[in-house]
Amino acid sequence: MACAVHRAPAYHCREVGEFELIARLAGALGETGPGVLLGIGDDAAVLPPDLVVSTDLVVEDVHFRRATTGLADLGWKALAVAVSDLAAMGAAPLGAVVGLALGSGWSADEAVAIYEGVGECARECGCPVVGGDVSRAAVLMLAVTVFGRTAAPATRGGAQVGDVLAVTGSLGGSEAGRLLLEAGAADSAAAAALAHRHLRPVPRVADGRILAPHVHAMLDVSDGVASDARRLADASGVCVEVDLDALPVQPGVEEVAAARGVEPGAFAATGGEDYELLVALPEAALATSGVPLTRIGRILAGTGVRFTGAGADEALAGFDHLQS
Amino acid sequence: MACAVHRAPAYHCREVGEFELIARLAGALGETGPGVLLGIGDDAAVLPPDLVVSTDLVVEDVHFRRATTGLADLGWKALAVAVSDLAAMGAAPLGAVVGLALGSGWSADEAVAIYEGVGECARECGCPVVGGDVSRAAVLMLAVTVFGRTAAPATRGGAQVGDVLAVTGSLGGSEAGRLLLEAGAADSAAAAALAHRHLRPVPRVADGRILAPHVHAMLDVSDGVASDARRLADASGVCVEVDLDALPVQPGVEEVAAARGVEPGAFAATGGEDYELLVALPEAALATSGVPLTRIGRILAGTGVRFTGAGADEALAGFDHLQS
Repeated sequence: MACAVHRAPAYHCREVGEFELIARLAGALGETGPGVLLGIGDDAAVLPPDLVVSTDLVVEDVHFRRATTGLADLGWKALAVAVSDLAAMGAAPLGAVVGLALGSGWSADEAVAIYEGVGECARECGCPVVGGDVSRAAVLMLAVTVFGRTAAPATRGGAQVGDVLAVTGSLGGSEAGRLLLEAGAADSAAAAALAHRHLRPVPRVADGRILAPHVHAMLDVSDGVASDARRLADASGVCVEVDLDALPVQPGVEEVAAARGVEPGAFAATGGEDYELLVALPEAALATSGVPLTRIGRILAGTGVRFTGAGADEALAGFDHLQS
Repeated sequence: MACAVHRAPAYHCREVGEFELIARLAGALGETGPGVLLGIGDDAAVLPPDLVVSTDLVVEDVHFRRATTGLADLGWKALAVAVSDLAAMGAAPLGAVVGLALGSGWSADEAVAIYEGVGECARECGCPVVGGDVSRAAVLMLAVTVFGRTAAPATRGGAQVGDVLAVTGSLGGSEAGRLLLEAGAADSAAAAALAHRHLRPVPRVADGRILAPHVHAMLDVSDGVASDARRLADASGVCVEVDLDALPVQPGVEEVAAARGVEPGAFAATGGEDYELLVALPEAALATSGVPLTRIGRILAGTGVRFTGAGADEALAGFDHLQS
């Protein structure tokens, strides 16, 4: 078994962090065209009348290591992570294009194995791969761009004081699976389920489409609820309170967290890569949205994120894979 | 001055060439979704009802070398090459997303300089950059995905026997400019114009939109008319005859070709990177399309490409940057 692509650390520059770099790059581009509804800074860009676009890079020796990566898993996850950004906007996938820089020493057979995983995920998500480009390179890189459609995109910026904070599915499973895979301990059925969660995440496409009209803000849980709640707070200009005891921890995660001396809620909040949907929505919509949700906190006046429950620590919100 | 990104050699695998690799990768993806109008194999993909998408990779030490590359030129050309694929479909650009894998040793300032060039091209082409992703990597890579819109995309596959083969603008300038830059001989005004042509190609966006309703087939001249005519012939199931004496050779190219003992037409046909539009259209449309075109050949029954004029050689059509 293998430890497939993982999102962190995505970028580390000598002088500046990822967010400063992105801000500088966005500035260097100059003025965005007048036709852009939503540009850099959300899960995806939105163009009139209803086009949603997102792009993700997966780079050898940054997001994955060749020796420990299952090739089809790598392909699956590269597309899944991008499609999850469409899900977080409430968009229906239209298609994807995939750029492949084939690292030196990689064979065509290995590239084909990666693409078989891409294709499996494409069918699972209803997001066909319609084009691409290939090049050679020093290391392998996949550049996945997905586009979708929604008349009413859900952004990170609309959370309102009094909203409920809620999440789909369960948390912590991907990180627990990653740790078990690294330790070579994914043999039991429970461990295998966690490993599968890490290797083959399934974006919440249908849930995102159903939720979008009911929520004030939505994003996907890529870096962990703690970090992603902070993004929601920043974008919406509110304070987000997260109850760590309320997090829907995936079965088997508690044991992995306990073995590391971490409270399960704190583990689940910082694990990342669960690709669930984190939403802020009115109390009344919690039961009527049509998607099973777990209430995990609330939206307050103020700024930033605060935690309650076992393991609560302000530092959790500052936990950022990208800077580590 | 610098020799910016160039398209060739884009890919060279140990076992297989680019086209075989792409075919194998496309096969590995499995069935394309039912909603795709035009998938892998043309300048861009087309999705219903009118979305056109294309993606291009630019890789350090493959498409450019750091020591000899102007950073803003690199950014300009990375976007221009992708937008040219939209032009070749007759699409109006909607926007672009840019993935940046920042090579080790590259600074944030250098990345910003690249993006300034991207932004300049974005304004020139009316194709705003609306999103992106950043990562570190062993080498610098840009992954540019552009999307546009057209109700009636022009493909490579519609050329008809009896059509005229024609091209916009002039040819050979980019390759002549590249050679002058490499020789450090781009000092004169004429040479500087050629160098500029190489460094800052301007995609024929407006011309492509105007031409699309008038042509039977269209693609952009990325690898040289000789290679691109072969693509048109293959996609359309026709023979394309190219008169090398009729090619609109850019001023100054003849001298560069002569210094290398090459006929100007043969030089212009194989130089590549001119990003003009190559079209097959009815005789009657040549004068009425609204875009200045030069007649350079005709569409015949049969297969493949044949050349007439000075320097004619069947081997020109087999000249393929990608395999060299």
